[in-house]
Amino acid sequence: MSQPSIASVRETLVATPDQPFDLSKRDSGDRSLFPDKKHARVSLKKDAAAINELQDKLYAMRDRALLVVLQGMDTSGKSGVIRNVFADTSPLGMQVEAFKAPSKTELAHDYLWRIHEAVPRKGRIGVFDRSHYEDVLVVKVRGFAPDERIEQRYDQINQFEKHLTENGVTILKFMLNVGYEEQGIRLKERITEEHKRWKFNPGDLEDRKLWPDFMGAYETAIQRCSTEHAPWYIVPADSRTRRNAMIARIVRGTLEEMDLSWPDPGLKMEDYDFS
Amino acid sequence: MSQPSIASVRETLVATPDQPFDLSKRDSGDRSLFPDKKHARVSLKKDAAAINELQDKLYAMRDRALLVVLQGMDTSGKSGVIRNVFADTSPLGMQVEAFKAPSKTELAHDYLWRIHEAVPRKGRIGVFDRSHYEDVLVVKVRGFAPDERIEQRYDQINQFEKHLTENGVTILKFMLNVGYEEQGIRLKERITEEHKRWKFNPGDLEDRKLWPDFMGAYETAIQRCSTEHAPWYIVPADSRTRRNAMIARIVRGTLEEMDLSWPDPGLKMEDYDFS
Repeated sequence: MSQPSIASVRETLVATPDQPFDLSKRDSGDRSLFPDKKHARVSLKKDAAAINELQDKLYAMRDRALLVVLQGMDTSGKSGVIRNVFADTSPLGMQVEAFKAPSKTELAHDYLWRIHEAVPRKGRIGVFDRSHYEDVLVVKVRGFAPDERIEQRYDQINQFEKHLTENGVTILKFMLNVGYEEQGIRLKERITEEHKRWKFNPGDLEDRKLWPDFMGAYETAIQRCSTEHAPWYIVPADSRTRRNAMIARIVRGTLEEMDLSWPDPGLKMEDYDFS
Repeated sequence: MSQPSIASVRETLVATPDQPFDLSKRDSGDRSLFPDKKHARVSLKKDAAAINELQDKLYAMRDRALLVVLQGMDTSGKSGVIRNVFADTSPLGMQVEAFKAPSKTELAHDYLWRIHEAVPRKGRIGVFDRSHYEDVLVVKVRGFAPDERIEQRYDQINQFEKHLTENGVTILKFMLNVGYEEQGIRLKERITEEHKRWKFNPGDLEDRKLWPDFMGAYETAIQRCSTEHAPWYIVPADSRTRRNAMIARIVRGTLEEMDLSWPDPGLKMEDYDFS
């Protein structure tokens, strides 16, 4: 069973830069790339193994980094992506940051201050579980900042991300697109299933009531900030396995394009004394 | 095939607090706990799976953390332990810090400053690949600090570690005890094997020449800093698989003793509106 080509996954999921973007046209239940769930599972397994090998070389070269940004409504599966796409990758080469509501110290700085600090060092794969995009999503929906400040942020974010890519950090951004109905099911599971109760936060239901506003904020953010240097991919997230498999394809493809290889410092055994 | 009991692994490997410690009595090639390599592999696999499940609960509870300190001469396998013992653990719950020679900023502070900053937050397993013990090991052997400063540090470290354990951080310290001969073999592999060349550092050969001094510094550090609250375990490290299996047993046992369970906030479905 062949995997869908990386190019086809990208093409299907990307929000094309400088094109109008309509989130309502993206089906959270789309299974066209992986009609068969078993194939998605096999594909994910293969890619997770390949990502591990590529990461080893990235770590050895230590001249570039990969940053994976994950955004999505509650229950869209950010933690699941981290666990499964990087299932085979050594924690030594990973740098995961889960951004919560900013602390007082963080609020005393500009909103990119804590983000910049968490950018992965060279050699590592960094994952942002939520990110600076919260500053144009929840901040916008809940009115935590004036409109004109938020309006400035899209360009600021594009500049910031361009700066990073020009300095050796490849950026991938995934919006985990879970459907309203599926979210309802998953939120209820957080009450009925013992091992999920710790995740339940009544605030998530407040966000759920603002669903159309959040979708509008996502649409704008993606439209304004999907760029050639840091594209947004919208990932159908109603099926966990397929979601993980699609993201793994793109992460693997991106690492492959980075042309990673084992550094060869040209060592000669006779130059050294091992006695 | 049963695994060796966690108690027996601990008892075999621990440097008993307040007892004289003789590193030369510890055989880097000891296979008594896992005579059969295949059994070590199976045991490691089981424990890695159990550690993952325990870590999920630790993460959900978010009231305590586990800190695993790894020390050992070059090639003793610190990276290998991280990769294998935590093979199944989600990167989201891990916090790995590899300490290198301190930066100028770090040197402008006391030696525990950068260490404290890297202590895992509650809910996480932190791993230190090297640690504050370098400040009584390489610093001592190479004379980077006066003897009387180093002499103070053993007690300071004990106090610091006690502070952490009193504040919810359980500490495990492993000295990966690789033999001189085995290290020679592994250093040579860093020239002959393509995927290991990036690890080769001529400075490692300089440390190798000071082997007896390093062993003396380890012996003193372990003797002085193996405490009830933060014991040192000396792990025979000539066999990679057995080394990993022994550490996994102790990590698992320690997590089990932390009495982790899924938090139950007593949620009732009827209290919430999921519409």
